Amino acid sequence: MKKLINGPDNVVRESLLGMARAFPDRIRVNLDPDFIVRTDAPRPGKVGVISGGGSGHEPMHGGFVGPGMLDAACPGAVFTSPTPDQMAAAAQAVNGGAGVLQIVKNYTGDIMNFEIAAELSRAEGIEVESVTIDDDVAVTDSLYTAGRRGVGTTVLAEKICGAAAEEGQSLAQVAELCRKVNGWGRSMGVALTSCTVPSVGYPTFTLGPNEMEIGIGIHGEPGRERMGMRPADEIVELIAGSVIRDLPFRAGDRVIAMVNGMGGTPLVELFIVYRKLAELCDANGIVIVRNLVGNYITSLEMAGCSITLLKVDDELVRLWDRPVNTPALRW
Amino acid sequence: MKKLINGPDNVVRESLLGMARAFPDRIRVNLDPDFIVRTDAPRPGKVGVISGGGSGHEPMHGGFVGPGMLDAACPGAVFTSPTPDQMAAAAQAVNGGAGVLQIVKNYTGDIMNFEIAAELSRAEGIEVESVTIDDDVAVTDSLYTAGRRGVGTTVLAEKICGAAAEEGQSLAQVAELCRKVNGWGRSMGVALTSCTVPSVGYPTFTLGPNEMEIGIGIHGEPGRERMGMRPADEIVELIAGSVIRDLPFRAGDRVIAMVNGMGGTPLVELFIVYRKLAELCDANGIVIVRNLVGNYITSLEMAGCSITLLKVDDELVRLWDRPVNTPALRW
Repeated sequence: MKKLINGPDNVVRESLLGMARAFPDRIRVNLDPDFIVRTDAPRPGKVGVISGGGSGHEPMHGGFVGPGMLDAACPGAVFTSPTPDQMAAAAQAVNGGAGVLQIVKNYTGDIMNFEIAAELSRAEGIEVESVTIDDDVAVTDSLYTAGRRGVGTTVLAEKICGAAAEEGQSLAQVAELCRKVNGWGRSMGVALTSCTVPSVGYPTFTLGPNEMEIGIGIHGEPGRERMGMRPADEIVELIAGSVIRDLPFRAGDRVIAMVNGMGGTPLVELFIVYRKLAELCDANGIVIVRNLVGNYITSLEMAGCSITLLKVDDELVRLWDRPVNTPALRW
Repeated sequence: MKKLINGPDNVVRESLLGMARAFPDRIRVNLDPDFIVRTDAPRPGKVGVISGGGSGHEPMHGGFVGPGMLDAACPGAVFTSPTPDQMAAAAQAVNGGAGVLQIVKNYTGDIMNFEIAAELSRAEGIEVESVTIDDDVAVTDSLYTAGRRGVGTTVLAEKICGAAAEEGQSLAQVAELCRKVNGWGRSMGVALTSCTVPSVGYPTFTLGPNEMEIGIGIHGEPGRERMGMRPADEIVELIAGSVIRDLPFRAGDRVIAMVNGMGGTPLVELFIVYRKLAELCDANGIVIVRNLVGNYITSLEMAGCSITLLKVDDELVRLWDRPVNTPALRW
């Protein structure tokens, strides 16, 4: 295992300290319990939007903390849920009196710990809503999940709900919006290589020199099928086709499209994927109105990508376009 | 070789088409000859700032085209210089009557082709200045270079010179500014793995399971020393120490610091590197006033990073802070 780390036990903590040094204008890092929070939190009268999950998916979630997106994010150990005390402390730090929305990816540990955190926060008098993201069409029930896994739609939900909270929408409104985004978002991924969790020291799984895993999970959970490598266009047809058929997206639908790198795939390849995705959407009459191409929800150094399509209406596009100023998304 | 491509010959072209689809508001892609250009070019009375180089270093340079940064970028084949006709056509496309600055990384092919392009452009009546970036402190004379290689400072020079051109500075002023940035910028990198050029199909070089290459070039050119893996903090001391001693940066200097991923290194590791770099700067009395942490000048899927420090004065900071709206840098 070759990594730019000082030791498996220090990865998350030292990375957080680096983030704190890099973005002191936007974020503050709290240690013990660990969370990343907007420098200007709490904002009186504003709904606090928090999220969290295992580390190793950067920039998600810490890179999305800042005006217009998340108020706080709780990083667990690599590929491990954060703990309820982190989440409850983050909720406390961002509570401006209008309640807190927890955006939770559908993994058993995250679900359980955010539920406990919600109870802790309610006991402190904070109104809490939780919305679960379960947008991965690849499989139902997985290594760490009952139902579908939560993946790329999380990024889009955090942006859109962050914008709604920023402009003063109520907790009920922001939670309802988050459920709408989850209902309209679908994703699927592919891995060309595995990744190595620092504390484990060897790859999570192995793929042969000509193999790929279609429908991979962001922790390396098995997908739909292991098959021989194919040209990029065929891979995009496989995964984007599954995404399009699932909602199903229909001719005339407008979407935000995300081509997300898993961490180890060069940008030059992600644009090849985006090109084919755009052609497929054209062929299906689906209109891509906004897009993201890059590394947003990664799996350490895994090579591969995922595709997310989110159906949008005027309101979602309007919220998407609102200003955002986080380490990883800014406009 | 497992890559998200359709064939080695189509990589650059298909990636360009993907970029064109993703960012129609900011860039336009010209084919035959290939270049990426601002949608609003040429801007009358504005100096055109162009760059280019081999592909495989994305987002550089095409991802830096847009208001406030480059007017055009010429992509060559992977790790191969673009041709003079691309550069001359790009100069023509961005010429608003105030001349064109070519920002050229110091590789023999790039230098030669940009020189020919400058002659072609001058024959068309376009005033041209060329500034060479040669900031890599690792080695003098390299596989494709006489003198020092041009690396990370290129990104910073393109941002700063782009801002100066945007606000109406003359060609002589923008070129002088570029020379100043090159004189004040220093970089060095490290590779933990090689990368594979698609048309070659096997890794450019090989590193043992516990080896790294200190002072790596962005095309995999040999560095200063191949050595056993060390903790991240020691690696940062090695490369940042070399950078700091070279200018030399002194106590009281203000700098823009960039921790750049080579393409295959997760963001979580880059922040560990940034944390140590910030500590080292603290210890040397060097004040980091701005920073970039992420993948900006990559080497396909190579694992590793580079560190760039650019000494700045008030004017450079002012230009750095000016708005920029490109695919890869935006504020």
